Amino acid sequence: MKTALLLIAHGSRRAAANDELRHVAEQLRQQTEYAIVEPSFLELAEPDIPAGAARCLAQGATRVVMVPYFLSPGRHVVQDLSRAREDLARRHPEVEFRLSEPLGAHPKLIELLAELARAGSR
Amino acid sequence: MKTALLLIAHGSRRAAANDELRHVAEQLRQQTEYAIVEPSFLELAEPDIPAGAARCLAQGATRVVMVPYFLSPGRHVVQDLSRAREDLARRHPEVEFRLSEPLGAHPKLIELLAELARAGSR
Repeated sequence: MKTALLLIAHGSRRAAANDELRHVAEQLRQQTEYAIVEPSFLELAEPDIPAGAARCLAQGATRVVMVPYFLSPGRHVVQDLSRAREDLARRHPEVEFRLSEPLGAHPKLIELLAELARAGSR
Repeated sequence: MKTALLLIAHGSRRAAANDELRHVAEQLRQQTEYAIVEPSFLELAEPDIPAGAARCLAQGATRVVMVPYFLSPGRHVVQDLSRAREDLARRHPEVEFRLSEPLGAHPKLIELLAELARAGSR
């Protein structure tokens, strides 16, 4: 089983925001056990989710974990992500597609906020 | 020196999203050394930043760390936050107002994403 991460952000008209997601993908590739990590965007930027998933499959992934880069996605985003997962699963029945929880759900986020506050001065 | 955290989210038309910030504020209050933690919103929800700051001061804060609840705030949000900080500092010269970095700047965010991916299945 070769697992890929498909990182998904909303997408922005600001190139810097989209580049940030690409940078996060690069860091995930370097700092975690996941050798295949691809960025993708719901809208306004490329690649979109199917194109990002295709890049994962081209590298031999047999499982793709879709990781939302959202603190707290709204209902429409959650629906879009679920639908994208179902579409991918239908088109690639030999591959397992999962959707992970958004960052706001992680209990350690509280500690990160506190650490930023402690460091915080600007 | 009595330090308060003023948590700041964008604000949403979805009550659930705004309630989530209130919940994060409550968790920060319970799990960290900060006894004064107030939520506030840039727009679309109450309290706004000055009202949230006033609640911190009413509890005796002599330093307020403004903590953006944003992964990667756009330029306009960053400007709004900086301006809000300056306005507060001008109106309350006896209080120190700081602005902390957004969550996207925290190096541990990468590990949190990987942990969500490992847990991730939906």
